[in-house]
Amino acid sequence: MKYSLISVSDKSNIVEFAKALIKFDYNIIATGKTSKLLTENNIPNKEISDFTGFREILKGRVKTLHPKVFGGILMKRDEADFSEAKSFDIFPIDIVCVNLYPFKEIIKNDSASIDEVIENIDIGGPSLIRAAAKNYKHVSVLTSPEQYQEFIERLEKNLVDEEYRIKLAYRAFSYTADFDISVSNYFERKFELEKTHLKIFERNTTKLRYGENPHQKAEIYGDFFLYFNILHGKEISYNNILDIISGVELSEELNSSACVIIKHNNPCGVASLDNNYNSYIQALKSDPISAFGGIVVFGEEVDDKLAEKLNEIFLEVIVAPDFSPKALEILKKKKDRRIVKKLKNINEKGLDIRSIPGGFLVQERDLTTLNVSNIKIVTENKPSSREMYDLIFAWIVAKHVKSNAIVIAKNKVTLGIGAGQTSRLDSVKIAINKAKELGFDLSNSVVGSDAFFPFPDGVIKLAEAGVSSIIQPGGSIRDEEVIQAANKYKLSMLFTGIRHFKH
Amino acid sequence: MKYSLISVSDKSNIVEFAKALIKFDYNIIATGKTSKLLTENNIPNKEISDFTGFREILKGRVKTLHPKVFGGILMKRDEADFSEAKSFDIFPIDIVCVNLYPFKEIIKNDSASIDEVIENIDIGGPSLIRAAAKNYKHVSVLTSPEQYQEFIERLEKNLVDEEYRIKLAYRAFSYTADFDISVSNYFERKFELEKTHLKIFERNTTKLRYGENPHQKAEIYGDFFLYFNILHGKEISYNNILDIISGVELSEELNSSACVIIKHNNPCGVASLDNNYNSYIQALKSDPISAFGGIVVFGEEVDDKLAEKLNEIFLEVIVAPDFSPKALEILKKKKDRRIVKKLKNINEKGLDIRSIPGGFLVQERDLTTLNVSNIKIVTENKPSSREMYDLIFAWIVAKHVKSNAIVIAKNKVTLGIGAGQTSRLDSVKIAINKAKELGFDLSNSVVGSDAFFPFPDGVIKLAEAGVSSIIQPGGSIRDEEVIQAANKYKLSMLFTGIRHFKH
Repeated sequence: MKYSLISVSDKSNIVEFAKALIKFDYNIIATGKTSKLLTENNIPNKEISDFTGFREILKGRVKTLHPKVFGGILMKRDEADFSEAKSFDIFPIDIVCVNLYPFKEIIKNDSASIDEVIENIDIGGPSLIRAAAKNYKHVSVLTSPEQYQEFIERLEKNLVDEEYRIKLAYRAFSYTADFDISVSNYFERKFELEKTHLKIFERNTTKLRYGENPHQKAEIYGDFFLYFNILHGKEISYNNILDIISGVELSEELNSSACVIIKHNNPCGVASLDNNYNSYIQALKSDPISAFGGIVVFGEEVDDKLAEKLNEIFLEVIVAPDFSPKALEILKKKKDRRIVKKLKNINEKGLDIRSIPGGFLVQERDLTTLNVSNIKIVTENKPSSREMYDLIFAWIVAKHVKSNAIVIAKNKVTLGIGAGQTSRLDSVKIAINKAKELGFDLSNSVVGSDAFFPFPDGVIKLAEAGVSSIIQPGGSIRDEEVIQAANKYKLSMLFTGIRHFKH
Repeated sequence: MKYSLISVSDKSNIVEFAKALIKFDYNIIATGKTSKLLTENNIPNKEISDFTGFREILKGRVKTLHPKVFGGILMKRDEADFSEAKSFDIFPIDIVCVNLYPFKEIIKNDSASIDEVIENIDIGGPSLIRAAAKNYKHVSVLTSPEQYQEFIERLEKNLVDEEYRIKLAYRAFSYTADFDISVSNYFERKFELEKTHLKIFERNTTKLRYGENPHQKAEIYGDFFLYFNILHGKEISYNNILDIISGVELSEELNSSACVIIKHNNPCGVASLDNNYNSYIQALKSDPISAFGGIVVFGEEVDDKLAEKLNEIFLEVIVAPDFSPKALEILKKKKDRRIVKKLKNINEKGLDIRSIPGGFLVQERDLTTLNVSNIKIVTENKPSSREMYDLIFAWIVAKHVKSNAIVIAKNKVTLGIGAGQTSRLDSVKIAINKAKELGFDLSNSVVGSDAFFPFPDGVIKLAEAGVSSIIQPGGSIRDEEVIQAANKYKLSMLFTGIRHFKH
């Protein structure tokens, strides 16, 4: 006599599966609704309370938690256990097919009551699954309808071996872990409890060709592709993904007609003009050497005219929320270049998590934006309204440049970006030199700085280069000296009180 | 009649706890060894099989999985349930005190057999804990000896309310999630299964003052402090941690007598001389402006002479595997500056995990080191043995500089570091300019580049500045042009075949 136990919340394909088990001479034990469904489909089965001799009690909260069930699952297949089992009228159960209450689905519905949610914390199910997985030497545990077909095929070919059952057990413990993480996270959120643990469970979505470098294996876990759809081109790479994120984070803070060009995780050209074509032209001019092989991000639809323009140089990735059919046709002419459609905004509240030795560093994402009414003008001169717009633009770009960041801009186009330097003065020099090399006129340009100037030297250098206004958080012990220097050079200077380091 | 259930693997403080429960008129039901211990300590209790009327079977695999136990835990305290329970001789169980088999401890022991490990997958325990947590409206669930004292205090003050029981339930589901993640990860590792999910469970260790910026909350999860011990100074900051990691990762690849100075996640000065005092002096000279407020990392003990020297300028953090008592005394004179003792190496195999929209990007850590026998000399000239040492040094430093990275070095001291630029040529210019500004003689210096030169321009610029040898991965479609340029300028050039992007 061979026994299998079926208790499923998701009933897809369960009838076919049960039929197949019958063909292989399994007796089926099933819980309430599963049993009913099988019976309706003329599949012989025994309701679990008939099997245990103990009827379902307490509104269904206790159904399967019975020694006859767990003994049958957990018993070893040795003489001692067989004989003990026999004396207790326990039969070995070789197949356990269980999936759990739809807890995760229920909590997605904001209007679900706590009682409804709590009722969907499955107790019997995980116990059955875990017991079966523990005894993988003898028991097969199935936790998803996707697994039925392979299992039946293996039954037919006599290939339900220990190696296979180990994989089923692995999946089973992952499944129950996921369930309890969801419950724990629900409690944390719902009752606003202090976060005691970092709990992550994400499925492996994509194996990448490699990571940051060819000798590093890499994978994507989770739902990245709910945010981005790769329409065309070579497989997306690890570095592409980092660049896309950097570009889109910045793009979402600018007008939708803006254009951002990214290289090595830093913006190399940004413009926010009246339409995305003009923005692209200017962003590209701002540093055409770096833009070579770059990632270009738009905030609105790419049309055919822009597409033709984009095809003129080598770009790795083009990102936009939409592409006109004709634009797509034009862009697809370049076989390898990735075309990426942004499906939804990524600047949403959440945690920024990164590995450190022994664990993780976790912080809130930096979503703070500039509140113009909190800006303080600290100099004798005030910025003009044109300068004010440029200052805000430069400030937003600087937020997305790796620290130390200095961004020189005019008419909402970047003219020089000094990124990732170990001293602010170096970032100042780089920004100025880059602008000068490309022949930009820096007179009346403005500057955004991600953090305060520790000394007046950077401000003086910028003033000498033609800059007329600077926006920065302030907060240095030498702020007074810095302001004096600005006054001396007739600059206007704004303090925001907000620092935006990015590493 | 009030009932409590106790079944603990970790028996610390359980006798005291049970005694207190008796004082509050609880009947105690206990499993095998717990019951025995209580009885030995003259604490009245009922062995669980006496309670259920079903004896422990199958070598203890099935003890608690009985409707009388689960009914007692899961029943609502309403009339319908009470009357149904009564007819089945079920009594409400209000306190469930359970902790699990020491699975995590067992698997730490490499010599543990699979059978032993599997036997330590607890089935009854998680079922009891989860059932009790689900019914938090009526049941208190305790999963750790740390909780006993507060619970008893609350019993005394009549403060075991729903709010408290919710916290216990939250902890309980976290605990069972953690257990199953451990089991699943064990299967993955032991049976070398393909990683289907990213599963992380780490405890909150430290609330930081803030994250990368003051408006971002931040926390450390896991065992970072098994690697680093903060001996002195202000609270460690988020940015300190990132810098310490960058510095130590580099330091561990150099001789132990080397010194690394970090600012904004990038090295600003590195030297690998005969002792750490000389290394520090030279590393500091290499960019004294950036070093202001920097993080300094050593690979061996800091003595008093070095400590005096370190005290001369403002440094945020000093990291070393050891400090002589006198050095420590000297260094502690600066009240705020952090003194960090490195407890063990951090360059170990593992995953590098970072948040992306909807999930995580996961890659193997970049631990690949240079295999000198794989290096190809591609130019007519060959490096001298002094140059060869410098090339390897520059190459190692470049690996730890943000891309694009260009490192100019001579006599195992960095003279100019071009970091984090969007074009390689810009990194070249920055490295040269920084060296020149400080008056360094670049004749016969060498260069390490993290990735190939896409055009000859950078190589020519370096040659003109005096550089005599370059190490880089190679792999550009213009490698031939680049080699020709090197030959024309009588440079030697080495190809490693290994790229080291870092973002």
